[in-house]
Amino acid sequence: MSVPDAQIFPHATGTALATVDAHQEPQELIFYAGWFCPYVQRSWITLEEKGVPYQYKEVNPYKKEKHFLDINPKGLVPAVEYHGKALYESLVICEFLEDAYPDHKPSIFPGDAYTKAYARIWVDYVGKAFIPAFFRLMQAQEKEKHDLFRTELYDALRKFAAQVKGPYFLGEEFSLVDVAIVPWITRDYILAENRGYDRGDGSAEWKRYADHVEQRESVVKTKSDKYAEIYGRYLRDEAQSEAAKAIRAGRVIP
Amino acid sequence: MSVPDAQIFPHATGTALATVDAHQEPQELIFYAGWFCPYVQRSWITLEEKGVPYQYKEVNPYKKEKHFLDINPKGLVPAVEYHGKALYESLVICEFLEDAYPDHKPSIFPGDAYTKAYARIWVDYVGKAFIPAFFRLMQAQEKEKHDLFRTELYDALRKFAAQVKGPYFLGEEFSLVDVAIVPWITRDYILAENRGYDRGDGSAEWKRYADHVEQRESVVKTKSDKYAEIYGRYLRDEAQSEAAKAIRAGRVIP
Repeated sequence: MSVPDAQIFPHATGTALATVDAHQEPQELIFYAGWFCPYVQRSWITLEEKGVPYQYKEVNPYKKEKHFLDINPKGLVPAVEYHGKALYESLVICEFLEDAYPDHKPSIFPGDAYTKAYARIWVDYVGKAFIPAFFRLMQAQEKEKHDLFRTELYDALRKFAAQVKGPYFLGEEFSLVDVAIVPWITRDYILAENRGYDRGDGSAEWKRYADHVEQRESVVKTKSDKYAEIYGRYLRDEAQSEAAKAIRAGRVIP
Repeated sequence: MSVPDAQIFPHATGTALATVDAHQEPQELIFYAGWFCPYVQRSWITLEEKGVPYQYKEVNPYKKEKHFLDINPKGLVPAVEYHGKALYESLVICEFLEDAYPDHKPSIFPGDAYTKAYARIWVDYVGKAFIPAFFRLMQAQEKEKHDLFRTELYDALRKFAAQVKGPYFLGEEFSLVDVAIVPWITRDYILAENRGYDRGDGSAEWKRYADHVEQRESVVKTKSDKYAEIYGRYLRDEAQSEAAKAIRAGRVIP
């Protein structure tokens, strides 16, 4: 059986390529990545924000190395190897970097307990409302569904945008809420080119936020050029990633 | 239009009733709860574990008080009011209690960053794999679907049980992983009585874990008698909770 995702472009491009090249030396922390994956970009942005020393290793999802599978049997990326043990899940890795490198600033969390919890509520919202709406619109095949799911995506992002203090979600400080959503913002040109999406049609607040947050240095440094090649498979609803399969089946993105 | 959930029993019963009665005095932290809700029980267990002073307020989901809706417009429970501001989402509240009351022991997190991240991976697994499987089985109406979804639930809980160090998930210390799953364990008799579920059919490890964790004092103190009355609506697939509607629509539980 043919696997539509098998012929993936093998490495980062654009500004991300220089970042990869600068992180080839062995380090205490190894970052297992896929250049194209928005979940990977969350953890990668956090590594860059905090200046944590890391070694970047590209994982080809169809040719995973034995050592990687030994420590991380499901083979998921993003993953980190830390003192010989693996962790996965993008947000878990972001929180881990906070906990394991407390002296590396800036923190991606605000200092007070209430605002930290408030940030977690909106990180959760991104995962449960915004991202599924984004993938549903991308994978929809009929015009009527494009219109329906685009409206649902606009609803989801307007609720988010209404909470943005500006310029970042919590105000002056870039935080985990921005980390959680920005990889999809850097990829939303795919929806603009193929699904009639327009940042300004979402809301003026959304457009202002999205236009600003995508310029953050850590975001630019982890961004590749060739996302459109990857997302062609999503646009044709042929993608076989876990996220794509979950959306198709009406299940939770694992 | 009739609302099948409208005639909800108005207050906690069993051992939980005494706990409610012991927490009526005004406190810095107000806990807005529904005695029947497993997500509420997560936050409630954490309050009890840590000995955080709190005032318990029962929220009737069909007669929400104005003040509660003013600070928490969506009206979701569990919620906490802390210095006049509201927080919601069960796990966000658990993490908030850790951050806001660092001197209240025990912590529900292990001390080292790696194990804390490992715990978060499995908390995430409970929410994304175990709970949706639990609700799917409860809401399924046909015999074939009962069999299919029971098998899926057993698969999900076996993966979890295989990681249990014993007696608790992480070993000797009760943690957020146990908090995250135990409310569904206290309610699994509904599946046993109606869906052919049996802890021992899951796995011996699962049965040993479930039989033990449900005896934890904080779990017993927050448990009511009348869950079966609530879950009758789920068993007939008539429930109108956000979780029930999400499962029916093949969407993420919000």
